[in-house]
Amino acid sequence: MAPSATQQNGHRGEQDLDLTSSAVEHRMAENAASDSNSTGAASNGVSQPNVHELDASKLSYNFTQNPRELPALGVTQDNGNSICTDHMITVKWSAKNGWEAPELKPFGPFTLMPTASVLHYATECFEGLKVYRGHDGKLRLFRPDRNCERMLMSSVRISLPSFPPKELEKLIISLMSVDGPKWLPRDRAGSFLYLRPTMIGTQSQLGVQAPSEALLYIICSYMAPMDSPAGGMKLHTSPDDMIRAWAGGFGYAKVGANYGPSLLATKEARARGYHQILWLYGGTGECTEAGASNFFVVWKTREGKTQIVTAPLDDRVILAGVTRSSVLALARERLADEVEIVERKYTIDDVIEASAEGRLIESFASGTAYFICPISHIHHRGRDIHIPAGKGGEGAPITLRLKKWLVDIKYGGVDHPWGVVVPEEH
Amino acid sequence: MAPSATQQNGHRGEQDLDLTSSAVEHRMAENAASDSNSTGAASNGVSQPNVHELDASKLSYNFTQNPRELPALGVTQDNGNSICTDHMITVKWSAKNGWEAPELKPFGPFTLMPTASVLHYATECFEGLKVYRGHDGKLRLFRPDRNCERMLMSSVRISLPSFPPKELEKLIISLMSVDGPKWLPRDRAGSFLYLRPTMIGTQSQLGVQAPSEALLYIICSYMAPMDSPAGGMKLHTSPDDMIRAWAGGFGYAKVGANYGPSLLATKEARARGYHQILWLYGGTGECTEAGASNFFVVWKTREGKTQIVTAPLDDRVILAGVTRSSVLALARERLADEVEIVERKYTIDDVIEASAEGRLIESFASGTAYFICPISHIHHRGRDIHIPAGKGGEGAPITLRLKKWLVDIKYGGVDHPWGVVVPEEH
Repeated sequence: MAPSATQQNGHRGEQDLDLTSSAVEHRMAENAASDSNSTGAASNGVSQPNVHELDASKLSYNFTQNPRELPALGVTQDNGNSICTDHMITVKWSAKNGWEAPELKPFGPFTLMPTASVLHYATECFEGLKVYRGHDGKLRLFRPDRNCERMLMSSVRISLPSFPPKELEKLIISLMSVDGPKWLPRDRAGSFLYLRPTMIGTQSQLGVQAPSEALLYIICSYMAPMDSPAGGMKLHTSPDDMIRAWAGGFGYAKVGANYGPSLLATKEARARGYHQILWLYGGTGECTEAGASNFFVVWKTREGKTQIVTAPLDDRVILAGVTRSSVLALARERLADEVEIVERKYTIDDVIEASAEGRLIESFASGTAYFICPISHIHHRGRDIHIPAGKGGEGAPITLRLKKWLVDIKYGGVDHPWGVVVPEEH
Repeated sequence: MAPSATQQNGHRGEQDLDLTSSAVEHRMAENAASDSNSTGAASNGVSQPNVHELDASKLSYNFTQNPRELPALGVTQDNGNSICTDHMITVKWSAKNGWEAPELKPFGPFTLMPTASVLHYATECFEGLKVYRGHDGKLRLFRPDRNCERMLMSSVRISLPSFPPKELEKLIISLMSVDGPKWLPRDRAGSFLYLRPTMIGTQSQLGVQAPSEALLYIICSYMAPMDSPAGGMKLHTSPDDMIRAWAGGFGYAKVGANYGPSLLATKEARARGYHQILWLYGGTGECTEAGASNFFVVWKTREGKTQIVTAPLDDRVILAGVTRSSVLALARERLADEVEIVERKYTIDDVIEASAEGRLIESFASGTAYFICPISHIHHRGRDIHIPAGKGGEGAPITLRLKKWLVDIKYGGVDHPWGVVVPEEH
């Protein structure tokens, strides 16, 4: 078996440099091209007549015979476990046959062999999005297309199968059409459920290889609101001996491998009285993410300009948050007269300096779980940075304006293309 | 809740720098101190009377009623799935009660909730070791204490519970005492089974947090020998846009998060005719690991000295392989007169230069799965490095000598403290 690479000169060397991103882009482009309901479309890069594409229109319904009781408003856990709705959607995939027909069925346990790929090699990825009960009575998702596109990217990055993102979006909406009316009833306007599309490698094989079997599933749970801790969010910077992600890694993908390894530092920070880690990167201490959220500061430049600043996406160290991109878009659309919106690298020393010179105005974390969460305090190596965060840590003015605009879209205060209404029977 | 950090000055800043490694070392030291069978020992850092320590002496036996047939010699898979032995050992853990009594029971599927921590956040770690049927008829493990100590380190690093490594070792031996005689019978001298101790976070909770419930299990499977691909192993260097691990990360721990993300590049390399990725690190292209094995070169210095060189452990980017440390120890003990043994950083350019100057003598990968595997070829950005690997790629002289010494220890050719005999009934 002579390596074929030796037979191609010239640009082969260049191709070697970006093998990973080109593989990811290649497979995502295939999916965009074949984004249709036709069976026999390409999955995993090879067009084969008997390899079926993910097809939401094939969804079968197997309703629960044991509907559970709705928990009281505000109850989100049962004995430390997440409370989920009555149903889930599952779809099996194999390299040989592609995607089976999706099934909506009672929420309950899986069986997995002890040799399953996901239990050993972290062949897993997920998304997190919320469904909101609007003050106008409607049920809405917020930009679910973005989550579904990112799920495809994460799946390909972790060697799980590809799929047309639009089909996943349809499945999410189908699950919510069934469980939404009961689990997020109209008398709970202003509250939400948390949706968790997940994919895992299920092949029972200890060889270190891309799994030939996988399971896509969608579950829906309660989650406590986390956007307003009393006094604002307190961050502890990451220690020198731990970074979350790195250029050339997978920090931009929503894969399990970004989360488990971060728990140790988070637990230590919580034991010291902080909510989350502010993850620094590189020798200069670039600010990247706050916990599993994107991180923003608002400061004045020495020239007196107000800037909203957040880390850039180009080196793929941070997650391209849906809330992040929405904040940036709204700020550019509605605040451009007063504020500059800047995606650039900046360091913890820049933040300390701005604080020392009285130029640090606000800071917040953005993400689906924490929504827009004002940050009042950052601890960095024995030093404490205090940040204005409004009365009781509820948020300073710019943070609050951005948050209100998003709340209005999510809860139907305004009609906006980002708010996707879930059809309900009555 | 005022962060306590502000109240302690001075060394607090220093402590912040190595929070992770100090947390890991702290918990491992606790276990070393409490390494006993007494119930009520510390688990997870808190000594509580009702929190039970892992205790192999409490093992219960539930033998299979449906013993399976032994596969033919050389058959290692069934329809793409790993073939496992009749039994497995499982032990449940909870933060509240500590470790339950271990159970030996029929090998079979688990049930896990779709919300289980391991399926979302890669709260998982494992070990790999082999059991060998000696030419003297005995069943042996190779340095199982090393695997058990590393398993503890990995577990703590990924926020799973701690345990006394010696108890895990006893459980491994117990499983092999039961399944070894049948699944690795005396007429299969010179062959092996593959043991996979695994731990997973089982708490059914979507919050990003250290799991409060976990499952430790030990399974045993067949695996094809991988130490002698025809013509030697062929490596493709990692692309610029993908590194395996990084200083400050978790490359030194055997956690799932190191494996899933590497599959994409490995699949691409295999499609191009290579066996594994040679993982380079940093701007200079330091050689770190070959696939999931440690990587060695043997070269002559310009002064004419023969050196065995491999990457160092100190920046925690590579796995501290049991085979790696055994190779280094044997070489230092038996080859020191003729060869220098060096653990240091070296780059792919150093290897290319040695090759161009005719100084590159041998190269091999070392690990449990690949054992000692001669490397004959490295492809780096359009360039091919050919390495002497003996006739048919079976290995050059130093590689073969090291391999033979290890084979002798594993298969009972010599009596050596690294070979731990498993007691069998007859």
